[in-house]
Amino acid sequence: MPPRCIIRAAIGADAVLAEARRHLGEEAVAAHSVVEVAQGLEAGAEFLIVSDAIWSAEMSAAVMASGRRLRWIQSLTTGIDRMQRFGLPQGVSVSNVGAAFAPAVATHAVALLLALQRRLPGALAAQARCQWERSIGADSAVPLGQRGVVLGFGPIGQEICRLLQAFGMRMTAVSRSGTACDWVEVLPATRLDEVLAEADALVLAAPLTAETTGIVSASLLARCKPGMLLVNIGRGGLVDQAALLAALIEGRLGGAGLDVTDPEPLPQDDPLWRASNLIVTPHVAGFAKDVSIARVCEVVGANLRRVMAGQAPLSLVTPSQVFIG
Amino acid sequence: MPPRCIIRAAIGADAVLAEARRHLGEEAVAAHSVVEVAQGLEAGAEFLIVSDAIWSAEMSAAVMASGRRLRWIQSLTTGIDRMQRFGLPQGVSVSNVGAAFAPAVATHAVALLLALQRRLPGALAAQARCQWERSIGADSAVPLGQRGVVLGFGPIGQEICRLLQAFGMRMTAVSRSGTACDWVEVLPATRLDEVLAEADALVLAAPLTAETTGIVSASLLARCKPGMLLVNIGRGGLVDQAALLAALIEGRLGGAGLDVTDPEPLPQDDPLWRASNLIVTPHVAGFAKDVSIARVCEVVGANLRRVMAGQAPLSLVTPSQVFIG
Repeated sequence: MPPRCIIRAAIGADAVLAEARRHLGEEAVAAHSVVEVAQGLEAGAEFLIVSDAIWSAEMSAAVMASGRRLRWIQSLTTGIDRMQRFGLPQGVSVSNVGAAFAPAVATHAVALLLALQRRLPGALAAQARCQWERSIGADSAVPLGQRGVVLGFGPIGQEICRLLQAFGMRMTAVSRSGTACDWVEVLPATRLDEVLAEADALVLAAPLTAETTGIVSASLLARCKPGMLLVNIGRGGLVDQAALLAALIEGRLGGAGLDVTDPEPLPQDDPLWRASNLIVTPHVAGFAKDVSIARVCEVVGANLRRVMAGQAPLSLVTPSQVFIG
Repeated sequence: MPPRCIIRAAIGADAVLAEARRHLGEEAVAAHSVVEVAQGLEAGAEFLIVSDAIWSAEMSAAVMASGRRLRWIQSLTTGIDRMQRFGLPQGVSVSNVGAAFAPAVATHAVALLLALQRRLPGALAAQARCQWERSIGADSAVPLGQRGVVLGFGPIGQEICRLLQAFGMRMTAVSRSGTACDWVEVLPATRLDEVLAEADALVLAAPLTAETTGIVSASLLARCKPGMLLVNIGRGGLVDQAALLAALIEGRLGGAGLDVTDPEPLPQDDPLWRASNLIVTPHVAGFAKDVSIARVCEVVGANLRRVMAGQAPLSLVTPSQVFIG
């Protein structure tokens, strides 16, 4: 039986394969390399379920060359910046995982912000010296009454806004469209500067696109409220890391929490590792024991059902393409 | 003019004195030592505004000996365990600061819990070695869907329940009375064991009393769900620290975050400093730049107005005493 759906998953591969098999039986096949993906596409597969994190130039080339019958790609991540950078064939619809990672990634963003506000890096450094240093308390802050800005208002940005509002932070979301919403202020990207001058924290939850690459630049950092905290759970490429390092060294930023860097892994000799008031986590915001994988499998299952019934998948991220069932 | 109100504040002394002077003018006087407190009481002061953190056996002796006209003590902290341990004169009403510290302390408790769930101590240790170690993600968790238990249901315990519910954690509060509440499950202390067997996290927000001293004992830790996380923002004496250390070493607890220890400061040679999966912060949960001090001053001002008008102060913590205005 020729494969109908190829699965190339970086994480949770067994669970995703099992979910696909519930819908497609033996027509769902795991691939363990680009070559196996190409073989499956050559054999006529229509669906490709794949992690954007392991997408590559070779994967784009294989899909372009062999995906004659391919019509739908289900990304196993929220961002699809690698697919977009390396290229996709015309006429293939791409859906992402919608809100699957939102609880984990938004929780991680809040954890990083609170850790910076509560001076946990300083406390852990003092703890390593067995020192009770109450002076760290002098700079401790809380979200209550502060102003927070979230760049990006997809499911993850929305969840970050909701959680920080629960702490009493006055939130503004900035999105490309700036489409209004009834529970939080949303502004278009053109008005980012207005809110940055008053922001105590900026959280990056935007996709990496031509417009957002390097958006946190030296000039943006120069226009921020002094002492602002920066959290990035989006993509490393959103930030000019040299400018970030300079702002941390100058003390212009109060601190930063990065789950993503550019490149990843962050090279061992990168000076960013040793910046003060910085927390680096190794792109783990989406991890949450079984929670995230279970939610990803729900999206995969729901979309397989839809596509097999001739409906467009949910969470299409290439909306200009009309899905033909 | 004889002093009517003596102020002995560990933190925010200027702000508290200014607030008292708004109501009492020169009749509000700052004391800088137990001797000065005694002198003020000898001169006929009726009100004492004081931090429990700097209450001592000498302070109790001075108040007993000299507080002939003393009828009201306003604590500048939530807990009054030192006053109760060292003793208070009969007939003096004591009020605490109510919810003044609740935003800061509850935020700190959530920050500690999230830091443990998101493996920030491990990430910071890898960062210090300039190492990108994604393996820390394997154990990352989120509050969503987990069970949390808060011991103590005063303003701080309530705020912790509210915040963790916003993350989707299934909360149970355990209080002395177990008085029901319409937005979270509240159980009496006698039913603590039932919920501990299922709890992914236990947060201590109870006062230190005869009943609660050492409540987190070796036997309680043996009855907890394996891998449970413990957070203590109450008082160090709630926990048997030797039992805690053993549970961390055995891996029976998944981790702990302590803002309070017994004694404080934690001695430099205490083995607890070096336990793995432990975060120690030096009793700084209440700090939040100007937020906490402003809220404390609001309570002080409101209670001075009430007491001067012959009304009982709010947040009485010695409710068996009838306040006589």
